[in-house]
Amino acid sequence: MSRTVAVLGATGLVGRTMIALLEERGFPLDELRLLASERSASTRIPFRGRDLTVEAVSESSWSGVDVALFAGGNEVSQRWAPVARAAGAVVVDNSSAFRYVDDVPLVVPEVNAHTLAARPTLIANPNCSTIPVTMTLAALRPLGTLIRLSVATYQSVSGAGSDALADLDAGVRAGLDGPPPGRANGLPAFAFNVVPQIDRFESNGYTREEMKVVWECRKILEQPALPVVCTAVRVPVRIGHSAHVQATFDRAVTPEAARAAWAEFPGVIVVDEPAAGRYPMPLDAAGRDEVLVGRARPDLGDPNGLVFFLASDNLRKGAATNAIQIAEHWCGVSTRMS
Amino acid sequence: MSRTVAVLGATGLVGRTMIALLEERGFPLDELRLLASERSASTRIPFRGRDLTVEAVSESSWSGVDVALFAGGNEVSQRWAPVARAAGAVVVDNSSAFRYVDDVPLVVPEVNAHTLAARPTLIANPNCSTIPVTMTLAALRPLGTLIRLSVATYQSVSGAGSDALADLDAGVRAGLDGPPPGRANGLPAFAFNVVPQIDRFESNGYTREEMKVVWECRKILEQPALPVVCTAVRVPVRIGHSAHVQATFDRAVTPEAARAAWAEFPGVIVVDEPAAGRYPMPLDAAGRDEVLVGRARPDLGDPNGLVFFLASDNLRKGAATNAIQIAEHWCGVSTRMS
Repeated sequence: MSRTVAVLGATGLVGRTMIALLEERGFPLDELRLLASERSASTRIPFRGRDLTVEAVSESSWSGVDVALFAGGNEVSQRWAPVARAAGAVVVDNSSAFRYVDDVPLVVPEVNAHTLAARPTLIANPNCSTIPVTMTLAALRPLGTLIRLSVATYQSVSGAGSDALADLDAGVRAGLDGPPPGRANGLPAFAFNVVPQIDRFESNGYTREEMKVVWECRKILEQPALPVVCTAVRVPVRIGHSAHVQATFDRAVTPEAARAAWAEFPGVIVVDEPAAGRYPMPLDAAGRDEVLVGRARPDLGDPNGLVFFLASDNLRKGAATNAIQIAEHWCGVSTRMS
Repeated sequence: MSRTVAVLGATGLVGRTMIALLEERGFPLDELRLLASERSASTRIPFRGRDLTVEAVSESSWSGVDVALFAGGNEVSQRWAPVARAAGAVVVDNSSAFRYVDDVPLVVPEVNAHTLAARPTLIANPNCSTIPVTMTLAALRPLGTLIRLSVATYQSVSGAGSDALADLDAGVRAGLDGPPPGRANGLPAFAFNVVPQIDRFESNGYTREEMKVVWECRKILEQPALPVVCTAVRVPVRIGHSAHVQATFDRAVTPEAARAAWAEFPGVIVVDEPAAGRYPMPLDAAGRDEVLVGRARPDLGDPNGLVFFLASDNLRKGAATNAIQIAEHWCGVSTRMS
């Protein structure tokens, strides 16, 4: 059987990570088609020992495509998902364009792969901060029902794209010998700063990034009324999103039981030996597919509460790895969930 | 009336900030005595147009001292507080050595200055993360009784001292062209990383820094059984501690009411115009005495909950400013609290 995979948004950070992971994971494909905007066309990107040339996406890009991995923005997804599906492709979309549509599954394979059973041809890949949070919470389902969730994130600059990473490095260089300059258009410095805004503000005072965590945790965990609070904050880290998580259950969930459950859960690694200085950190999570979880301890104010900290690579498990796992699952390819 | 002030730990970041603030605020003193360990003696530090020479602290350092500002570590405070008091000085101690002793007041002047009425001669200055949290919560007292508190911090490296700041800069320089190196003794990199450990671990899985926030919020707010959860995290910022705060009250506290209460409270500045990109950030808080508070919004899961974000200069209001305000209060000097 011959299989053609397309990556739309191939030159961005997530697109490039998808391409690297297709090779790294040995995804069975006969043709890889790299697509991007006109501006990025002709870029060459290595794959399996050859340099592939990025093509400008068009109506004619989709003929014969079986699996389309979308790593552009919402507008790009809205424009091209119908075209790709009409041409016969399954679309795994990393944008938030379709995540909140009822009949579009929002999938973390370790958590809710059953939603793929109906063979949907449009599947949404969740937000980079949401994925690790749902992984660590799904692992605890056997121990109790989650009734309340509070998350404060420490998100890396790569989540804002490659231009933002360049801004961080420029800001850090300038900030070594003076105050870090702000970014273009009056935006605050990433360097030597923390910025409590990711994405635009909603009318309820939350940012859209924070509401993504709220909406997506509810949808993925299939708890549509789960009370969730989130504060999403950018920190001067290149790769790796971290989070403080405070979870309340309908019964006591001890740190010991949580660690045991995490250790059994695919894609999660327990890093929780505080006395030895071992806990999750973004520098350790970067470049890995697994979510690192640790700092498990009781909620001092609630016998049914658990507090923990996690770190994961936002470009890999937070985006590209999860999307390719979905594709692997859809194609019946043995999925490496560690 | 003649007044002598001593600063113990004069060469550290907090000690130096104290000296700068004594000058900046025009604290009425006739003699300033700068004290430090033998190792730091002979250092010269400018004050009111002259260079003062740091002396090695000894039994004979305290004669005639009216106000002693302590900015060394716990052992230094334990060693010298009794000596300074016996010599007739009031000691304002920035270490945590005496903070949890019942009859030692732990003071944020805007919050609990009444504890100074009994003229205690040993007064503890709270933790740098605790002070801004208690300021913002005390401002809300007229609106409701706090019944639950959750804090996740984003703490700057200056909180770990001047050597740590040098580590940050060295790590950032090295990390611009490769992976940031770890610090000495196997400690994790500050640069391009977040580290969920500040101070040592307690047996309950919390760090001592996290328990300081728990214990000190309870003591300062005079709510000894208040349920408090804290996650304390170091971020690659030079000066300025930030925090996500989730506060639950016995009745609804709206963001509008909270902003109005903060606007009236001394030492707090509301920075909460998200549509204009205005919210608290450490780069804006650094160098200021006020606590910046914003991102006020309802707790989506609790009608009596409020979520907000704050930033403040950990060397100033988080340490030196607060200590000097205590001394001003004790001496009957008009205190500048906003």
